[in-house]
Amino acid sequence: MNQSCPLPSFGSDQITLGHGSGGKLTANLLDSGVFSIFDSPYLQERDDTATCPLGNESVVITTDSFVVNPLFFPGGDIGKLAVHGTVNDLAMGGGIPNYLTLALILEEDFPIAKLHTILQSIHEACGESGVEIVTGDTKVVEKGKGDQIFINTTGVGTPSPHAQLGNAYIQKGDAIITSGRVGDHGATILAQREGLEISGDLASDTRPLNHIVHGMLEKFGHAIHFLRDPTRGGISSTLNEAATTTKLGIHIVKDDIPILPEVKDFSSILGLDPLYIANEGIFIAFVEATQAEAIIEHLRQHPFGKNAAIIGTVIEDHPGVVVLENEIGGRRPLNLLPGEQLPRIC
Amino acid sequence: MNQSCPLPSFGSDQITLGHGSGGKLTANLLDSGVFSIFDSPYLQERDDTATCPLGNESVVITTDSFVVNPLFFPGGDIGKLAVHGTVNDLAMGGGIPNYLTLALILEEDFPIAKLHTILQSIHEACGESGVEIVTGDTKVVEKGKGDQIFINTTGVGTPSPHAQLGNAYIQKGDAIITSGRVGDHGATILAQREGLEISGDLASDTRPLNHIVHGMLEKFGHAIHFLRDPTRGGISSTLNEAATTTKLGIHIVKDDIPILPEVKDFSSILGLDPLYIANEGIFIAFVEATQAEAIIEHLRQHPFGKNAAIIGTVIEDHPGVVVLENEIGGRRPLNLLPGEQLPRIC
Repeated sequence: MNQSCPLPSFGSDQITLGHGSGGKLTANLLDSGVFSIFDSPYLQERDDTATCPLGNESVVITTDSFVVNPLFFPGGDIGKLAVHGTVNDLAMGGGIPNYLTLALILEEDFPIAKLHTILQSIHEACGESGVEIVTGDTKVVEKGKGDQIFINTTGVGTPSPHAQLGNAYIQKGDAIITSGRVGDHGATILAQREGLEISGDLASDTRPLNHIVHGMLEKFGHAIHFLRDPTRGGISSTLNEAATTTKLGIHIVKDDIPILPEVKDFSSILGLDPLYIANEGIFIAFVEATQAEAIIEHLRQHPFGKNAAIIGTVIEDHPGVVVLENEIGGRRPLNLLPGEQLPRIC
Repeated sequence: MNQSCPLPSFGSDQITLGHGSGGKLTANLLDSGVFSIFDSPYLQERDDTATCPLGNESVVITTDSFVVNPLFFPGGDIGKLAVHGTVNDLAMGGGIPNYLTLALILEEDFPIAKLHTILQSIHEACGESGVEIVTGDTKVVEKGKGDQIFINTTGVGTPSPHAQLGNAYIQKGDAIITSGRVGDHGATILAQREGLEISGDLASDTRPLNHIVHGMLEKFGHAIHFLRDPTRGGISSTLNEAATTTKLGIHIVKDDIPILPEVKDFSSILGLDPLYIANEGIFIAFVEATQAEAIIEHLRQHPFGKNAAIIGTVIEDHPGVVVLENEIGGRRPLNLLPGEQLPRIC
């Protein structure tokens, strides 16, 4: 605890939607709050997961609350998201997910039939992910004091014996891979919220990544240096976090990033950049450059990896900065999202 | 999963505040939802905790969301409650708490200063309980879509080597113990919510019970058959659940239940029964009758156990029913709370 540390200014002394965006304001809020008040070394690692000793074993733990609006959307619903999100966080931390907890905050008057649909969806997502709900909690708040349903899931698992992952393992020359298309989840939620008609292939990409990640780790082991699922704040946030932490530069080639034409269209209509849009079914991997092509080939064998691509490289130039190279070779920094772009996307 | 099971009627097809009361409606909701959709043996045990294999060890897991209103009250705040509640659930399941996760759902415009006060309180409660926050999550919802702050904590620990606890170990002749006074937390919250002036000793009893429970288990081991912290629904719910599950009768002597005069007064003003009011710092223990006096003497050495008392006995008569004997020897059944008495007490 560091009580003498003065609190930085946020430009606001109240919570704003931007504080939940996963961008710069979220980072500021955490810096001044959780990270300065709690002195846990686990928190200081700033991963989404913690790996802690438990008797003679290690346990990998992660937690996530889901407040997505709308609750149901093409490709999924809040229930699927609540399972996949937590399973994926564990997988990114090199964990093999075993158990989930399920805590519901229900708003008075929420239809019980909708609750059952969501529970059924959770049940199916657990089956697909190979995890089990082992304990839970249900709270109810008065009408107008919540928003239909909020879900928290906490995931508990064991470390993969093949994983050696973390910012510390990222090195100059690493290839940066995306396991799939960028922006599908966020564009779907936004389009639905704005009442735009969704057609073609556009749907949330929500899905469990633990099996594809586990297979990759089993085959390529320590050639995989860092994994992250680019949810809130999109791939831009993931890349910026990595650049900032490692004090290395990141060079991304725009044309190499797989993006669905519908996502480009919606983003353009809504004035958004797909690189800042949340994803729920892809991961970004920093890998040993010599293995990158083999990893891509391996990922493409899996239904969740068929659009896998190498999108960039870790370099020594412009340390701490992500630079995007466009179609005609122009370059611009891809900065961390300053505030709120897409509230309640997950 | 049992899809063919018809859903029971709730008298309502929407969520009501009563579904969050911890009473009969909560039980109905869980029966038709979680328990019929998920087929996990861990859930079927209907404990607040799950003990699951993890490699060569076992892990004890529990989760709880906190939506108490008001956030700050004599004796504590939502932060303390969020730590103690989860630590206590682990302790009741025979677990030694090690790690907590912390997930916040913040409402837009919530003052950051209040957030810091609550985080500080969480930090202190963790210190007192001997647990560490290892990972977390922060979400923000729009003004009017939440209520200031909701907190979820999930607790992860190891099983105590001295504990052999559960409904299955309750037997005829067991003495029923409370570790302290009944109703303090609920009466405090209610009095504050109703604008009644709180004086004297009345304050929430929120506190971590893991140390006192661990000491008791270490000394008395298998003589302790069952533990539960009587939160939502009060000691009446705890006793009724035990009677229903074991199909044994429970005989409680009203005069033996320690209750603060202020709690009696407030309850009488508000038309409530202290036996249905939530507690956050006591436990109910079912213990080997021959050891009961020694256990009471032991508990009274601990600051959190100085009001410990034997309040009843497990009997064969009136199976599944809790009977309360009053001051003049009259007897009445102490039934499960039918619906909502005290919303958002924790």
